[in-house]
Amino acid sequence: MLCDKTLRSIAITRINDTTSTEVRDDVVAVEEPLEIRVMGRPVAVVMRTPGHDRELAAGFLVTERLLRTQGDLLDMVRCGTTDEGSSRPGEGGASEENQENVLDVILTPGTTVDWGALTRHVFTSSSCGLCSKATIEAVQGQFAPLSAPAVLRRRILTGLPAQLRAAQPTFDATGGLHASALFDASGRLVVVREDVGRHNALDKVIGQAFFAERLPLAQNILLVSGRVSFEIMQKALAAGIPVVAAISAPTSAAVEFARASGQGLVGFLRGERMNVYAGTLSE
Amino acid sequence: MLCDKTLRSIAITRINDTTSTEVRDDVVAVEEPLEIRVMGRPVAVVMRTPGHDRELAAGFLVTERLLRTQGDLLDMVRCGTTDEGSSRPGEGGASEENQENVLDVILTPGTTVDWGALTRHVFTSSSCGLCSKATIEAVQGQFAPLSAPAVLRRRILTGLPAQLRAAQPTFDATGGLHASALFDASGRLVVVREDVGRHNALDKVIGQAFFAERLPLAQNILLVSGRVSFEIMQKALAAGIPVVAAISAPTSAAVEFARASGQGLVGFLRGERMNVYAGTLSE
Repeated sequence: MLCDKTLRSIAITRINDTTSTEVRDDVVAVEEPLEIRVMGRPVAVVMRTPGHDRELAAGFLVTERLLRTQGDLLDMVRCGTTDEGSSRPGEGGASEENQENVLDVILTPGTTVDWGALTRHVFTSSSCGLCSKATIEAVQGQFAPLSAPAVLRRRILTGLPAQLRAAQPTFDATGGLHASALFDASGRLVVVREDVGRHNALDKVIGQAFFAERLPLAQNILLVSGRVSFEIMQKALAAGIPVVAAISAPTSAAVEFARASGQGLVGFLRGERMNVYAGTLSE
Repeated sequence: MLCDKTLRSIAITRINDTTSTEVRDDVVAVEEPLEIRVMGRPVAVVMRTPGHDRELAAGFLVTERLLRTQGDLLDMVRCGTTDEGSSRPGEGGASEENQENVLDVILTPGTTVDWGALTRHVFTSSSCGLCSKATIEAVQGQFAPLSAPAVLRRRILTGLPAQLRAAQPTFDATGGLHASALFDASGRLVVVREDVGRHNALDKVIGQAFFAERLPLAQNILLVSGRVSFEIMQKALAAGIPVVAAISAPTSAAVEFARASGQGLVGFLRGERMNVYAGTLSE
């Protein structure tokens, strides 16, 4: 068990060539949503590493010009509580996690707020009671889980990274763009797209399939060049992609999402090695 | 000169120990905003690598459930144009770049749109005519450029990465969180924060300074563990940070922003080596 709330211990299957090892206490970085409100009004939901939430909210609001000095700030309270005691862990059961993920910023009376200065806005679907689980359920309501759990084919997967590297010329020139690559069921590269934004690279891959009238991508494998966040799994499910593989690590929310949706999720795919976070492995 | 619109050739100063070399044709990844509209209504501004914009818009809208099949889509037109010819490069001068960065999605008559399904929203400050330059000017209107161009002290900078590594325990455990570290003018570590989100780590650092009543951070240096995007420079300026250093590469928009704001920007800071993208170097 880990006490640090930035890390979570999970069970995975570690593959090294044909050797498979069940690991009970692998570690992933925790990713959970934080809804930031100002005077009860939601202004942003950010997927973040829990901890230092007050700093995160304050820094976000400083850079959005909603906060200037500490004199503007009266208090920050967790959702569902009404007094300053809210900064301490609450009592009770099921709703506690939700409260931890909603932070309401109370301004000093007389502080003016330029709402128009906000450059980004909240998920419209967010509401009090938001927590990682609720968000995942909301998204899965939008895009149905897969009809059958994904099967991961080891020998197909190990062949993918070399194809991505060969097809990603910009990476070497600039020290790295994010890449998303789509493969067919036999491991043949269909399309690769690069972007400064991780999600953009995947959106381009999905858009390419849209124009080719290949959606949903029910027989395909997605490989991403870096890490896998919640949002990558969510976009993959939206496109019907059953298997997501990554050169680097997934977050806790990505793993939870994959397990709930029936998607396969592989990380640290390097040579003959990989970590299986979700899905059934076969040769 | 580079023809690929995903890469841009820029002049930098390359430092290796005490040797300084002017390089005229270093390469950075291009980062520019794309405003996505549906039937004239802005739904998102994404900072992206130009190219495959139609795919990006389509993929984004598929994952936001605003598009389902190609039958829903009548056309995509660049801002300021009204017919299908808009997909070709326009003629004329100053407004052309703007048009390239706004894409309006025209739906087939009878297609229903569930606006409520949108999970993220457009920059409220965006308007027709948005382009990288306009965005930069808008942000600089919010946060004034530095009163004097930043000075980069070589011997201070080279000492920073080792301090970040020593202070970033989670990185090794999970295969990497993003880190932001703040140093004082003498190179002493003030605070380091990690997060699954690059911007969150910086927001936490700025929030920490907010609560310590140390804003603006006019004497400080920011070191980020990965790459530097436009938004990182923007947040740094919002907090008054004059110098930003990164272990990896900056984007084109980050370099342009730094040069316009008077900030110093260093990339590929490794050992005694670094690339200087903006600012005046001293020992």
